[in-house]
Amino acid sequence: MAVKALWQCDRDGKMFTNKKDADAHDQMLELAESIAQAIEENVPGIESEKLDDIGRLIARNKDLFSKAFKGKTAELTKLDFAEPTTDADADNKVTKINKVS
Amino acid sequence: MAVKALWQCDRDGKMFTNKKDADAHDQMLELAESIAQAIEENVPGIESEKLDDIGRLIARNKDLFSKAFKGKTAELTKLDFAEPTTDADADNKVTKINKVS
Repeated sequence: MAVKALWQCDRDGKMFTNKKDADAHDQMLELAESIAQAIEENVPGIESEKLDDIGRLIARNKDLFSKAFKGKTAELTKLDFAEPTTDADADNKVTKINKVS
Repeated sequence: MAVKALWQCDRDGKMFTNKKDADAHDQMLELAESIAQAIEENVPGIESEKLDDIGRLIARNKDLFSKAFKGKTAELTKLDFAEPTTDADADNKVTKINKVS
């Protein structure tokens, strides 16, 4: 047996085996929250849970959105709502946010 | 009296006094439609009208979203849903899409 370092994201408690991935996840969640808030303010009447999902969808796929912003709108057909699997997930069976169905 | 050239966007009939603005508007609407469709596929259950509004909100403010994607999430507090006024609007009293309230 041995000990190993884990990094946990404050926002949702998710754990990672390396700090870089944990930071990236934290930044993704921060972006998702900002997007959800911005949409809520400008397009009122959407349920809170759906706003969160939209925020995460866009934040997780921001690279595809960036390409779409530059004219490659077909990139948006490749969106993936699923959260990327990490080593920490595999090791610790952290509950993942699944696609809304 | 004189004649002048106008460019009309097929998607919504909006008119412009110069082709560059008309093209930009058309591309914005194309992006908005792609975004609305992508969100609909991944976060089901949102009304069609709200999806359209979200698509336009993001497409119109894509530069602010791009900045937010690079870490400047505060940019998203500056979002503006209002459609930019153009010369053609002023001249022709084209009906504008107003902010949902």
